[in-house]
Amino acid sequence: MCADRLKKRIRLVVSYDGTAYCGWQIQPNAVTVEETLTNTLCSLLGEPIRLIGASRTDSGVHARGNVAVFDTHTVIPAERLAYAINTRLPDDIVVVSSEEVEADWHPRRNACVKTYEYHMYTGRVRMPLKRRYAAHVPYELDINRMKEAAELLVGTHDFAGFCHANPSVPSTVRTIERMEIIRSGQDIILRVRGNGFLYNMVRIIAGTLIEIGRGAAGMEIVTDVLASGVRTKYNTTAPPMGLVLVSIEYKETDVDQDACEHAGMK
Amino acid sequence: MCADRLKKRIRLVVSYDGTAYCGWQIQPNAVTVEETLTNTLCSLLGEPIRLIGASRTDSGVHARGNVAVFDTHTVIPAERLAYAINTRLPDDIVVVSSEEVEADWHPRRNACVKTYEYHMYTGRVRMPLKRRYAAHVPYELDINRMKEAAELLVGTHDFAGFCHANPSVPSTVRTIERMEIIRSGQDIILRVRGNGFLYNMVRIIAGTLIEIGRGAAGMEIVTDVLASGVRTKYNTTAPPMGLVLVSIEYKETDVDQDACEHAGMK
Repeated sequence: MCADRLKKRIRLVVSYDGTAYCGWQIQPNAVTVEETLTNTLCSLLGEPIRLIGASRTDSGVHARGNVAVFDTHTVIPAERLAYAINTRLPDDIVVVSSEEVEADWHPRRNACVKTYEYHMYTGRVRMPLKRRYAAHVPYELDINRMKEAAELLVGTHDFAGFCHANPSVPSTVRTIERMEIIRSGQDIILRVRGNGFLYNMVRIIAGTLIEIGRGAAGMEIVTDVLASGVRTKYNTTAPPMGLVLVSIEYKETDVDQDACEHAGMK
Repeated sequence: MCADRLKKRIRLVVSYDGTAYCGWQIQPNAVTVEETLTNTLCSLLGEPIRLIGASRTDSGVHARGNVAVFDTHTVIPAERLAYAINTRLPDDIVVVSSEEVEADWHPRRNACVKTYEYHMYTGRVRMPLKRRYAAHVPYELDINRMKEAAELLVGTHDFAGFCHANPSVPSTVRTIERMEIIRSGQDIILRVRGNGFLYNMVRIIAGTLIEIGRGAAGMEIVTDVLASGVRTKYNTTAPPMGLVLVSIEYKETDVDQDACEHAGMK
């Protein structure tokens, strides 16, 4: 009872290179980000730790700002925990910041806006210095067609045809607030902002826009699949190394868990 | 004699992520880029191959456009060799292009202009997604001071105090054509263009500019060390992962070997 009163909840912003990890979520016989971070926290704080992550990113997917919370009895000031953890973490994971939050604050139950980026490199020859953080898409991509197709996805839609099927998700309706496509030389970045994403949704959107950009599919593939809810061969899943979870911004009001995040559900 | 007539010299432009390699040059008990590329060429072409590289980049240093030549009897058209080699190379090395050159064309004896970039990330907390291709410099850097100091290095100077001592180099006079410092958010790129670079010269220039940018050294360190030829504690060697050999552009006229490249001499 007394110990429980001294417990505090800490929110971490976590950044990682997902290349070496089988995603965020702890699973048997595979090294994950959650497991690595949990083990580091246990050894630092000398108590059992249970992390709750905001987004269960997939194998090979990166994050600049994933969010996680845990409860602890530590006397280390919340803001200094990040530094203490970072001295023990491998160099492909870092805690960007740490702060105390309300005891019932939950990273998947609070309303949030997530921003993802999907990075592509369109040079003809693969580029070793890009290979870890961008998909190699060796085609001429028509950026204007991609932008036009992306606009059709903005708004509240049933994205059933733009996700990996998952019967446990009660609704496949989501809202995309904004899509941007930025070209810089042979690099193309797709930036998506929304209130929640289904499993593989951003990678399937990226894959679909690539098919449209290279002329393999017409613009109608977007409206057709939004209307039918049935995924086609043009709604390919772009590879994981191009995807990065950029940030999760929280609003103050609490919401239902389902409204926020199913990106990592399997 | 007949076989020699059929021999042709092939020039390769080679790009690599240097993280896993002990530099370019073949050496005992270490995996290098030259060795990996040589072994791949031998197995592809079925004949002994001797590569001559333009720049012997250091351990952990990257290249977007290093240049190398080799002689071969192959009947594979020169331009198609790149594709054939790439199917056999690991994913951190690629041949960007291949073409036939004159039998006496030499990548270190022909006049050239080299461009290097030194990449820095100045965020307070280390960033996993930057760690392989940028040095973490967690300081507020005064870009204007760095630019001013960089200008003092442009031109023909004796760079004896800006290189790792190497008694076998006949002259430490080099010409820097241009220096640029580009900031984008917390990323800073130093771009240097010149006719040849001494061993560790770009990394020592980067290290010196960092010391000046963070206020640890005054601007006079540049003019003093250029005048004295004696390296000081402020002429630090910035770490290898930030350095990338961007390109080597060749002019038509031949020059003395020494004039072009000593960057990799040990």
